[in-house]
Amino acid sequence: MKTIQEIRQMTDALRKLDTSRMYLNDFFHTWKESDDEIAAVFQVAEVLRAMREDNISCRVFDSGLGISIFRDNSTRTRFSFASACNLLGLTVQDLDEKVSQIAHGETVRETANMVSFMADVIGIRDDMYIGKGHTYMKTVADSVEEGYRDGVLEQRPTLVNLQCDIDHPTQSMADMLHVINFFGGVENLKGKKIAMTWAYSPSYGKPLSVPQGIIGLFTRFGMDVVLAHPEGYEIMSDVEDVAAANAKASGGSFRKTDSMADAFKDADIVYPKSWAPFAVMEERTKLVGEGRFDELKDLEKRCLANNARFKDWTCTEDLMATTRGGKALYMHCLPADISGLSCAEGEVERSVFDRYLVPLYKEASYKPYIIAAMIMLAKFKDPAAKLDELLDAARPRVR
Amino acid sequence: MKTIQEIRQMTDALRKLDTSRMYLNDFFHTWKESDDEIAAVFQVAEVLRAMREDNISCRVFDSGLGISIFRDNSTRTRFSFASACNLLGLTVQDLDEKVSQIAHGETVRETANMVSFMADVIGIRDDMYIGKGHTYMKTVADSVEEGYRDGVLEQRPTLVNLQCDIDHPTQSMADMLHVINFFGGVENLKGKKIAMTWAYSPSYGKPLSVPQGIIGLFTRFGMDVVLAHPEGYEIMSDVEDVAAANAKASGGSFRKTDSMADAFKDADIVYPKSWAPFAVMEERTKLVGEGRFDELKDLEKRCLANNARFKDWTCTEDLMATTRGGKALYMHCLPADISGLSCAEGEVERSVFDRYLVPLYKEASYKPYIIAAMIMLAKFKDPAAKLDELLDAARPRVR
Amino acid sequence: MKTIQEIRQMTDALRKLDTSRMYLNDFFHTWKESDDEIAAVFQVAEVLRAMREDNISCRVFDSGLGISIFRDNSTRTRFSFASACNLLGLTVQDLDEKVSQIAHGETVRETANMVSFMADVIGIRDDMYIGKGHTYMKTVADSVEEGYRDGVLEQRPTLVNLQCDIDHPTQSMADMLHVINFFGGVENLKGKKIAMTWAYSPSYGKPLSVPQGIIGLFTRFGMDVVLAHPEGYEIMSDVEDVAAANAKASGGSFRKTDSMADAFKDADIVYPKSWAPFAVMEERTKLVGEGRFDELKDLEKRCLANNARFKDWTCTEDLMATTRGGKALYMHCLPADISGLSCAEGEVERSVFDRYLVPLYKEASYKPYIIAAMIMLAKFKDPAAKLDELLDAARPRVR
Repeated sequence: MKTIQEIRQMTDALRKLDTSRMYLNDFFHTWKESDDEIAAVFQVAEVLRAMREDNISCRVFDSGLGISIFRDNSTRTRFSFASACNLLGLTVQDLDEKVSQIAHGETVRETANMVSFMADVIGIRDDMYIGKGHTYMKTVADSVEEGYRDGVLEQRPTLVNLQCDIDHPTQSMADMLHVINFFGGVENLKGKKIAMTWAYSPSYGKPLSVPQGIIGLFTRFGMDVVLAHPEGYEIMSDVEDVAAANAKASGGSFRKTDSMADAFKDADIVYPKSWAPFAVMEERTKLVGEGRFDELKDLEKRCLANNARFKDWTCTEDLMATTRGGKALYMHCLPADISGLSCAEGEVERSVFDRYLVPLYKEASYKPYIIAAMIMLAKFKDPAAKLDELLDAARPRVR
Repeated sequence: MKTIQEIRQMTDALRKLDTSRMYLNDFFHTWKESDDEIAAVFQVAEVLRAMREDNISCRVFDSGLGISIFRDNSTRTRFSFASACNLLGLTVQDLDEKVSQIAHGETVRETANMVSFMADVIGIRDDMYIGKGHTYMKTVADSVEEGYRDGVLEQRPTLVNLQCDIDHPTQSMADMLHVINFFGGVENLKGKKIAMTWAYSPSYGKPLSVPQGIIGLFTRFGMDVVLAHPEGYEIMSDVEDVAAANAKASGGSFRKTDSMADAFKDADIVYPKSWAPFAVMEERTKLVGEGRFDELKDLEKRCLANNARFKDWTCTEDLMATTRGGKALYMHCLPADISGLSCAEGEVERSVFDRYLVPLYKEASYKPYIIAAMIMLAKFKDPAAKLDELLDAARPRVR
Repeated sequence: MKTIQEIRQMTDALRKLDTSRMYLNDFFHTWKESDDEIAAVFQVAEVLRAMREDNISCRVFDSGLGISIFRDNSTRTRFSFASACNLLGLTVQDLDEKVSQIAHGETVRETANMVSFMADVIGIRDDMYIGKGHTYMKTVADSVEEGYRDGVLEQRPTLVNLQCDIDHPTQSMADMLHVINFFGGVENLKGKKIAMTWAYSPSYGKPLSVPQGIIGLFTRFGMDVVLAHPEGYEIMSDVEDVAAANAKASGGSFRKTDSMADAFKDADIVYPKSWAPFAVMEERTKLVGEGRFDELKDLEKRCLANNARFKDWTCTEDLMATTRGGKALYMHCLPADISGLSCAEGEVERSVFDRYLVPLYKEASYKPYIIAAMIMLAKFKDPAAKLDELLDAARPRVR
């Protein structure tokens, strides 16, 4: 628990950051945001967390809706979004496309306007098809912007990307806030080595947005970021370019390797996780789009067979022993494929996973605050002043 | 945005209307409501909208539930109801009959009581079967009235008809409020011509409640209301009688025609929309009730074949050119069947629809406020005083 | 409606009860709670009800989540939990395992933590398999306790058992509060006879937690509790032991009989309800666990055939006439299997059921308050002081 004085120091620090461009804007990809903007998200998230721990209400909305659109099953992100909305005073209304009367051929623009008459926020997860998720989100954001301009909507709902085909900013930023706290401050990250590596999983088609999100964000902090995967498991080259440019600007480094051992060697942080190759995801998107489901099954079979060649890409105790002092921070977005627990052979050895349970849960615990921070920064021109107001009022959350 | 003074003038006007009979009552059909009551719904809706635009909280409930029962898929109405409840401070609890333990043979009375212990409002959409929807709603309303009288329920939940087999009052009233604003005041509607016409759609079995709702309400404003449909596409004759009586009382007119061209000629407003003939809906209800599903398929086939004879009943640019100055206001409850967008041939030509996108969205934007107004009028004996209180308090919605 | 003075007397009475052990604790089974704790739940429930009837807000949470997990369809309990949470200011977030991304093999500990970052309460219904429901709830409770201790969760969510394989405390306590009010006070229950009897139903596999909950709780009030069922329809013997010990301590009695007539004779209260034999439930759990679905069907067939031997175990007018003055209070947790209404032959004759509609609905109406009371007692060290604060503030619920 922090004292009010300590929290005030955090809002003072926030006041020095330029967040003007975030106001009434959307959050798509971390690399579209300035360093000040990224720092502000962390700062607001930490203030909100400290306030909640001190039983100070963070409600800035008396009423209002947060619309959620999950185009795939979800637990963690669903509850994180619900928690963030609740913390700020918004009520979640889920657009469940299965029980909705969305007409065949109804435009995204129409649906977006129809659900947004009283929406302050729209959170979308759409990560399954390459070239689709981000495009969909952009269309929704443009539609409600237009609706607001045309006087259809009373407020401009702000969009929060809860995972698209390109980035997973609420995940990567929760991960980074965990890392910042673990290492005792952002100033301690320079020169730290992180291994973002592919790992074997008995399933196929896991999204690329996690590894892409990690290399796109972690390279901004002067860290040595290593992306490791077997040949053929390439991610989007655009995001690799982002990572390379970030690393250069931040005084860190970004490199690729096809050896998990190389990546783990002396690493301070390891993030072993399965994903499908970009080329496969593209092919999959095409087949689904064209309704060629027989070929889809064939693709899956081929991919699983290919995956099986790399069962040794798994996070073992032996590999962990080669990290910095044998004590690298193990990370995962969860749920993980744990050998001997959730599957016969998977991303990580059970004893490793079990040793890191508490840090893994803490890592996840930042996500609601990251989402709430993104909302606050889009809704308030002077977020530091607004947080100070909440601190002054000091209304108890549990009365 | 309106000034507080302008809003005060609206609550002053509201004060002059007799809404005493609405207090603790339900909203079933517009034609069961007096002119004062109809005017009051519009007035309260406009006040709530103005307050929200001025960031003044409309919360009149500290806690409480709004129960929703959707017996058919729904997006617009679901979000409108959720928005209305949220605006006033109620939390929506949906009775999803698919995941509910409603026993075979359980009475409506029992279910209605079981979900209403803390319910302030119940919103129901049940529009699929002739003779069913309204009956169901009436049974629910009677049951909770009885439950309240018997001391089972602490409050009497008020019922809002979110669309039944007979009327769709939240739609027709949102439509009318759009028309009032479009023409600059209710006093400008006298003598305006509206064409409520059938239009071709590749689907079958669309409910009758929209055309019925429109002729049942719009005839009260001195307008010339024309109902057009091909032979055999009759609506309920009871509602036609209501429309005729309304027209007589208001100094307007109501007539029927079997020509779309006739209806569109010099119209100020056009509302082309598909529906199933009343006789077909009756047959369908019977077949479903008796589980005769083979015959149901047969009925559908026959109807679609019959529909196909009237593909020229579509809202074209040519037809639009024949309206008053070629500029009639095009209306639709959405989603529309748009030729060349959502289907090959449908209710409206794409270029017409696209030209009216913004007005169509505005039309829809009134529904949450209409629903909220119906709730307020049922919950507060002196709604003007309550709204003035909210204006005095001037609590910000976004703090 | 009660006066504020009357409500103050209730909080004064509450102050004398020792509820210290309930603070930050869970509610699993009534027999794990002391007499003071049971009395406190009733007292808080009555205060909350009186406050709501007086339009005094019971909100003690400015924001916060109540997580619900229903592993079976549910209406009554779902709405009761939603009502309780809403009354206190919590928002329900349902963990719907069908649309959640819960990985194969994901631990309960992980899921429990992932959904609890901002959870104040977790309500679980898991009543289908012997030896499962309570175990699951205990694992969830232990997991979040651990998560809180480890700094993963900011607050320790309290668990409310919404029905497990062993007890159904929110049902039995709502039932008892109904009985207390019906007989004009807890002091009038000594010597009253209640017949908790099995009854025939055309369905199979109804949970044991209701009869177990009733005998486990009602024996604490000096009542004569008779458990009646045909041979072979035994409940868990552990709970029978609890009932016997309770009866001894309270100066009442507990006995079993295989005659419905014997149980009904001179009874003040009758609770005729179907359940599956404990031995059958055990076998069923085993078969489901081992995926032996063919044998499961066979088991169902055998059970239904066996049930059919006891169709005369039904609550008739003739049997009712043998109760105390012919006027025993008929109780049921609902929905009931009503002969001639929901089934040909069932638990109760229609005329009996109809005569008791209002008391049955009242019985059910206590459940939201019982749940809210359990939450309050787990969240506030000094619940009487907290309720007095709410009475002092006297914020209107409907403003």
